[in-house]
Amino acid sequence: MASKEAKISLKAPKGTRDWSGADLLLRDHVFETISNIFKLHGGTPLDTPVFELKEILAGKYGEEARLIYNLEDQGGELCALRYDLTVPFARWLAMNNVQQIKRYQIAKVYRRDQPAIARGRMREFYQCDFDIAGAYDPIIPDAEILRVIVETFDALGLDITIKTNHRRILDGIFSVAGVPAEKIRPISSAVDKLDKEPWEAVKKEMVEQKGLPEEVADKIGVFVLNRGTIDEMIEFIKADPNLSANEEIKAGLADMDLLSTYSKELGTFDKVSFDLSLARGLDYYTGLIFEVIQKPANTKDQDGTRYPEKSSKNADASAVGSIAAGGRYDNLVGMYGKKQIPCVGISFGVDRIFTILKARRGEKEGRSRQVDVYVMAFGGKEFNGLLLERMSVARQLWEAGIRAEFSAKVKPRLPQQFKAAEEVPLGVILGQDELAEGKVRLKVLGTGKGGKEEEKDEKDQGQLVSRENLVEEVKKLLQTHTLPIR
Amino acid sequence: MASKEAKISLKAPKGTRDWSGADLLLRDHVFETISNIFKLHGGTPLDTPVFELKEILAGKYGEEARLIYNLEDQGGELCALRYDLTVPFARWLAMNNVQQIKRYQIAKVYRRDQPAIARGRMREFYQCDFDIAGAYDPIIPDAEILRVIVETFDALGLDITIKTNHRRILDGIFSVAGVPAEKIRPISSAVDKLDKEPWEAVKKEMVEQKGLPEEVADKIGVFVLNRGTIDEMIEFIKADPNLSANEEIKAGLADMDLLSTYSKELGTFDKVSFDLSLARGLDYYTGLIFEVIQKPANTKDQDGTRYPEKSSKNADASAVGSIAAGGRYDNLVGMYGKKQIPCVGISFGVDRIFTILKARRGEKEGRSRQVDVYVMAFGGKEFNGLLLERMSVARQLWEAGIRAEFSAKVKPRLPQQFKAAEEVPLGVILGQDELAEGKVRLKVLGTGKGGKEEEKDEKDQGQLVSRENLVEEVKKLLQTHTLPIR
Repeated sequence: MASKEAKISLKAPKGTRDWSGADLLLRDHVFETISNIFKLHGGTPLDTPVFELKEILAGKYGEEARLIYNLEDQGGELCALRYDLTVPFARWLAMNNVQQIKRYQIAKVYRRDQPAIARGRMREFYQCDFDIAGAYDPIIPDAEILRVIVETFDALGLDITIKTNHRRILDGIFSVAGVPAEKIRPISSAVDKLDKEPWEAVKKEMVEQKGLPEEVADKIGVFVLNRGTIDEMIEFIKADPNLSANEEIKAGLADMDLLSTYSKELGTFDKVSFDLSLARGLDYYTGLIFEVIQKPANTKDQDGTRYPEKSSKNADASAVGSIAAGGRYDNLVGMYGKKQIPCVGISFGVDRIFTILKARRGEKEGRSRQVDVYVMAFGGKEFNGLLLERMSVARQLWEAGIRAEFSAKVKPRLPQQFKAAEEVPLGVILGQDELAEGKVRLKVLGTGKGGKEEEKDEKDQGQLVSRENLVEEVKKLLQTHTLPIR
Repeated sequence: MASKEAKISLKAPKGTRDWSGADLLLRDHVFETISNIFKLHGGTPLDTPVFELKEILAGKYGEEARLIYNLEDQGGELCALRYDLTVPFARWLAMNNVQQIKRYQIAKVYRRDQPAIARGRMREFYQCDFDIAGAYDPIIPDAEILRVIVETFDALGLDITIKTNHRRILDGIFSVAGVPAEKIRPISSAVDKLDKEPWEAVKKEMVEQKGLPEEVADKIGVFVLNRGTIDEMIEFIKADPNLSANEEIKAGLADMDLLSTYSKELGTFDKVSFDLSLARGLDYYTGLIFEVIQKPANTKDQDGTRYPEKSSKNADASAVGSIAAGGRYDNLVGMYGKKQIPCVGISFGVDRIFTILKARRGEKEGRSRQVDVYVMAFGGKEFNGLLLERMSVARQLWEAGIRAEFSAKVKPRLPQQFKAAEEVPLGVILGQDELAEGKVRLKVLGTGKGGKEEEKDEKDQGQLVSRENLVEEVKKLLQTHTLPIR
């Protein structure tokens, strides 16, 4: 049995990873930054199970449904890992008949996609979602979501562009171009690939795989390859008599008009690009849709271009792809047979954001551990290790809320103790003679480097402090000697 | 399609639940309390994937392995949801060749058990684990784990007993009683049920299901039904010549001697009961094992009994079962074919702890939302809703880090706005005339009750504040008018 077990592959499953140390602290910093913005806007947290009944997920994801992880049928209900946080939120709204809420959720989701770890695309990854549910007036919640996006990336120090489009405008364009109703969603999926593939490849997919007449595909191309500010694009669409006569497009334009007004008031207008090629793969969107990309540092709004051209040579610049995405989904909650609740939301791709921030941080590694005091002991030939005394001092510190450690050896060697005190700002040093007088030595471990340098510095034995005053003196020193986390 | 979807069961999967509002805030309070104690002891966080390769989990859980959730074989690796956080930790240690660490992890685990929701037993539930890995001197880390347990439940305000036993002593007892080596683990599993079933039932399982001769079962009963303080039980075992001659038991007793000394120094001795019936179901434990139960309020250490007798009439008193459990597992990491790393750890059953704390809190419901300011507007017949002005004020507050909301209606009615301001301490009220002078009204919403009471109080229109001073004045008022979370 032992030999068999020695052969197992010692790894996390494909497309997943462990988080620890400085990486985990950086990721938690991202979570905290984002959730603070969510709270600024009145968000309340929600936590749902990691798997849902399969029927809850069915029919919500279009072509992407093939990426859903199913649980094995072991008797009982058929379940699948959640694919996003939106469908579970809609299920929760319908189940509890919640009429309005701003909810946020930070949790892992699962997609059986081909992983691309360097670009932050994993099979298990975190999403941070903020959604506004409720029957409100048009575009007011949508505009607040765009504001949340801008505030979040400002707080993270990332320069971004929000690509937006409107499902009703897009569907209207398909309809004007001559796409039959039943092909609108598949064609929309093809158009959505325009951020990764050139027009020729997308056109080929439409014609060869999805059976669209070539002239219809060409008409689509005339429209969807355009983008600009919200106002520029409203003008562009209105200038085309075929488009502006379409009822769906009219309805979408009314929304975009409001978005222009509101986003100017909320200070987000300049970050938004109205991009007719944005389609979003998911079936459930019904109105405004958006996707956030990082603005490459060398792009300076030349020629009115707000982000890199979609040519292959720019693939590196935005290699991680979209770092947040969302939209309005007014019919999803109603699909569960309950009262319709209109919703709009944004999902932040935290792993991709992490990848960017980590690359920016570069080689600087943060501390992975936060301990205030290391309790150590040393003595001469008769040294018995003073274990019980070290326990007693550690207990005293813990009771005062001070983070303290000591060596779990009966007779630890001095170098071991100094090594273990790496990154710890203060040392309490016990000696038999001092203890007999009820005293200990309290020493600032200086640079926090620990190890040999500290050991050399051994002759500076710190200040002599009585056990009764120890907590007070430690707290005093910690005010000036706590090391930064990052 | 719509009619089909209307029929789906609108629920979370069996044995799982959603968390929101006051429940989620209480649970997060438990997480924060526990992780603060972990940090006090030098713990560093770890996050592992929710599923592992099946072969990683294989052979670690004994009879409980049947409760593991498998993922469907959709091509590629065979995976299963994690059953606990210990095995993933051991995999991580072996994979990264980590020689020593104090790690903690707060995450969900999965068991296809029969749910008992009222008692806090779920199929998806959180564990909070703290483990000390490293080759140290005996029982020093184990004693610190017991200290972590005591500090945690002190911080949560729960009175507890830590039941402890030692795998080598238990195995020695089985051996002395005449249990053949290959039956030790199954018999141990049977003994572990003594906290839920009477001795007769357990004996029946041993004899009828596990084929143990009745006289062997009776001998086991003579020993395992005893418990007391660590010192009492050491004396009890040493007094029996058969037990005290057994090498395994001798080794275990040496550990328990140290535990007695260390737990007195760390102030945990009085919380510990040495209970020979404690067995723990999992295969991987090798030394000290422990399980924490809540001490019923009416038990006052009569007759030396430190917790309720295991009779059915006491089943209610400790209905939630153990609320934390753990032990030493020195061989688990080595099972992955790498260097052995001895470990000891504790896992807190947060959902059960939550159940107890929620029952204690009773009907008092906490706030589920934290907003500082609600921005509202009202006016006469010509009232246009002042939407852009409300957006502008909200933006000003967000930029100052103040949590603010406004109605997402173009012309909200006044009662709606006051209703939405429930639980919000401050209101900023916009009126056309004041805005013309660059001013707004800032009003303390008093009790935070909002709704009709506030509305009646409408004549108190608060103080008139200029837009430039608004942030400053809001911050001043928030210092005295922020409502408590719980």
